[in-house]
Amino acid sequence: MTSPSSSSPLRLGIAGLGTVGAGVIRLLHANADLLHARTGRTIEVVAVSARDRTRDRGVDVSGLRWYDNALDLVSDPDVDVVVELIGGAEGPARALVEAALKAGKPVVTANKALVALHGSALARLSADNAAPLLFEAAVAGGIPAIKTVREGLAADRLLRVGGILNGTCNYILTVMRETGQDFASVLKDAQDLGYAEADPTTDVDGLDAAHKLTILAGLAFGRPVAFDSVHVEGIRHIGADDLAFARQLGYRIKLLGLARMTDDGLQARVTPCLVPQHAPLAQVDGVFNAVVAEGEFVGRIMVEGRGAGAGPTASAVTADLVDLARGQAITLWGVQSGTVEPVRACPISVGEAAFYLRLRVEDRPGVIADITAVLRDCGVSLRSMLQHPADSETAPHVPLVLVTHRTSEAAMQAAIAQIDALSVVTDTPVMIRIEAA
Amino acid sequence: MTSPSSSSPLRLGIAGLGTVGAGVIRLLHANADLLHARTGRTIEVVAVSARDRTRDRGVDVSGLRWYDNALDLVSDPDVDVVVELIGGAEGPARALVEAALKAGKPVVTANKALVALHGSALARLSADNAAPLLFEAAVAGGIPAIKTVREGLAADRLLRVGGILNGTCNYILTVMRETGQDFASVLKDAQDLGYAEADPTTDVDGLDAAHKLTILAGLAFGRPVAFDSVHVEGIRHIGADDLAFARQLGYRIKLLGLARMTDDGLQARVTPCLVPQHAPLAQVDGVFNAVVAEGEFVGRIMVEGRGAGAGPTASAVTADLVDLARGQAITLWGVQSGTVEPVRACPISVGEAAFYLRLRVEDRPGVIADITAVLRDCGVSLRSMLQHPADSETAPHVPLVLVTHRTSEAAMQAAIAQIDALSVVTDTPVMIRIEAA
Repeated sequence: MTSPSSSSPLRLGIAGLGTVGAGVIRLLHANADLLHARTGRTIEVVAVSARDRTRDRGVDVSGLRWYDNALDLVSDPDVDVVVELIGGAEGPARALVEAALKAGKPVVTANKALVALHGSALARLSADNAAPLLFEAAVAGGIPAIKTVREGLAADRLLRVGGILNGTCNYILTVMRETGQDFASVLKDAQDLGYAEADPTTDVDGLDAAHKLTILAGLAFGRPVAFDSVHVEGIRHIGADDLAFARQLGYRIKLLGLARMTDDGLQARVTPCLVPQHAPLAQVDGVFNAVVAEGEFVGRIMVEGRGAGAGPTASAVTADLVDLARGQAITLWGVQSGTVEPVRACPISVGEAAFYLRLRVEDRPGVIADITAVLRDCGVSLRSMLQHPADSETAPHVPLVLVTHRTSEAAMQAAIAQIDALSVVTDTPVMIRIEAA
Repeated sequence: MTSPSSSSPLRLGIAGLGTVGAGVIRLLHANADLLHARTGRTIEVVAVSARDRTRDRGVDVSGLRWYDNALDLVSDPDVDVVVELIGGAEGPARALVEAALKAGKPVVTANKALVALHGSALARLSADNAAPLLFEAAVAGGIPAIKTVREGLAADRLLRVGGILNGTCNYILTVMRETGQDFASVLKDAQDLGYAEADPTTDVDGLDAAHKLTILAGLAFGRPVAFDSVHVEGIRHIGADDLAFARQLGYRIKLLGLARMTDDGLQARVTPCLVPQHAPLAQVDGVFNAVVAEGEFVGRIMVEGRGAGAGPTASAVTADLVDLARGQAITLWGVQSGTVEPVRACPISVGEAAFYLRLRVEDRPGVIADITAVLRDCGVSLRSMLQHPADSETAPHVPLVLVTHRTSEAAMQAAIAQIDALSVVTDTPVMIRIEAA
């Protein structure tokens, strides 16, 4: 048991030499002694595949076999493990991973979109060919989130899983709160700093977090989760004043991905949430990620760390390689094949929560009466209200913030539709769930 | 790879049926379906050993083989795995674990003292007999701390590891801060609530945290750490006013176990520390534990959760059983045998930190001059000072709080000795390290 499956070198073929690929090569070099001590083997790169042979990546790739076509890594008999760092749910990344698994070669990947969208088919390929597919780096960067959920909490029935899964959104919301700047200007700064992509859609519209939540939920509940069953909202509609109002009410706003197992199936959603300001998740700021899981026996666990970047991601990719070198590998969803059937999804309109509701309304008598009448008629009861006097910039439109008691999401949706239709309501209402987190 | 090593049942012999033992039996029963799905095997208890056959433990043990002598579990051919939940570094627990390993039977234990004091010898026994020894529950209860450090961060060179490792101390310090009560009265309440033992020594004097730190450091640095090389202080000397002063200065006081690898060897200490109030560790309150690790590539990771209790501990014990059932097991310190040699310890007087110093002094002119002259002569420079007017209760003795800039621990120790000798200083000085955490 305690010896690795082999003492021969573990030989890698790496596809994709961006920041993460270069980071993995750097880590393997810097920590070669330590990796040997921990696995009893050397872990060495023998071949790579990337587009540009001449680009300076800050690491020496001169002695390595170079393939223009990543698929050639699969047929190279010297490659024991394929490391896929190309990215993207389709195209060359998918083709490479499928080919490697079919050839019985273990794969390590950081590709969240691929696993989120094709996890079910990949799990079958992996099992059928006895080729492990490891993807620790796909969720929350350097945080060992996959290992925590699939192995560390493997004894417990998990009730929910999720957390702060996108560092770009968390950074933007943190800076908006701290500086009072609006979304667009903070996004611009984040792009300049390299914390947001030129095309920020995947991050700020919640898709990246949804990919990660899909994977985490699949692991927590031992079954593939259909990506399109995850309800996804981003943060573009959050105003700087929402962050200020939330603070006044004792909350912070975080983009959370949360999946809960209910009696009616799995509810998975990525949405901005109000979180009590003293809750552990509320303290996780900037580019940091945090994964929470709650189990019947273990209670609540939270892991926080760097969710992106060359170093943390390289650490996660290489931790998977250490597992392989040590002869450790388990099935994709952490269950024995045969028991895998897709999880039933529950509509997000089922269930209750308290809500924050921010409106912009005309500043004249009777407006509050009109709005609260709609809420009453929909069965939504109010816990508190903030109203700010008009200032010169926004008058005659003023913000009106309402916080509800726990109410059904369906009732809330009905109320919002009617409120939005009121002529005194001048902007689309913003509704944010309140999560105990 | 993806199938377990066997599909036959994994049969357990459990020694010790206290709250944790009963919790494990309850969990195995409650989650039997899920454990089977995750491992492809049933995990069943076939035999137990405990002192009192008649005690009501809230679980049904009537169908199980009962041994008065725990060692009989080892010779029972139906027992595949010995689960040691007796506790204690010596006596029956140690004898049982050694006998099981010698017989080639895997062992799962929650016994931190045993692993901390005898880890080196047990690692050899485990390797020599190809019998895994797993102890996830020994550190930080339900938090998968062992797995995080030994596997999740296995790719990185760790610079430090530690955290809030004793829930009793964290609970006491939290309540002292929140209520202003002194140590003795909060301890009494904690004992009444079951958060502290009748004999609280192991917890409040830091030994329990030191056991856990010894284990974590061994895993982080891949070598056994001598328990007596860990510097240990408890929390008895912390006054309610220290918590109040810390708060005024922007800090909280936490009992931290921290091990750092330095150029001169390993520094490991369990001491109360001042932690900036917005640092993640400062937010971990009550009976919660948190483990931090910092690596060159991964940066800083923190995991928090419940550090004790039947449910969380049973979750950790059973996670080890899931690993065994899945055919996963690695060497005790996470390195291949042969490379294991004890880590070199560095005296804690080596190195620098900022310090909080709380004195009680006579309330008369010239006192501050006398004290600051000592600090100056020892090369300790001050960053800030709090002095409170005498009140009727304490006069003519008043507290004087000094915060230093970074300075060597040796200089600080020299200064404290001289200050303690001053006739105007009426109580033993309290010196607390400031950690960035």
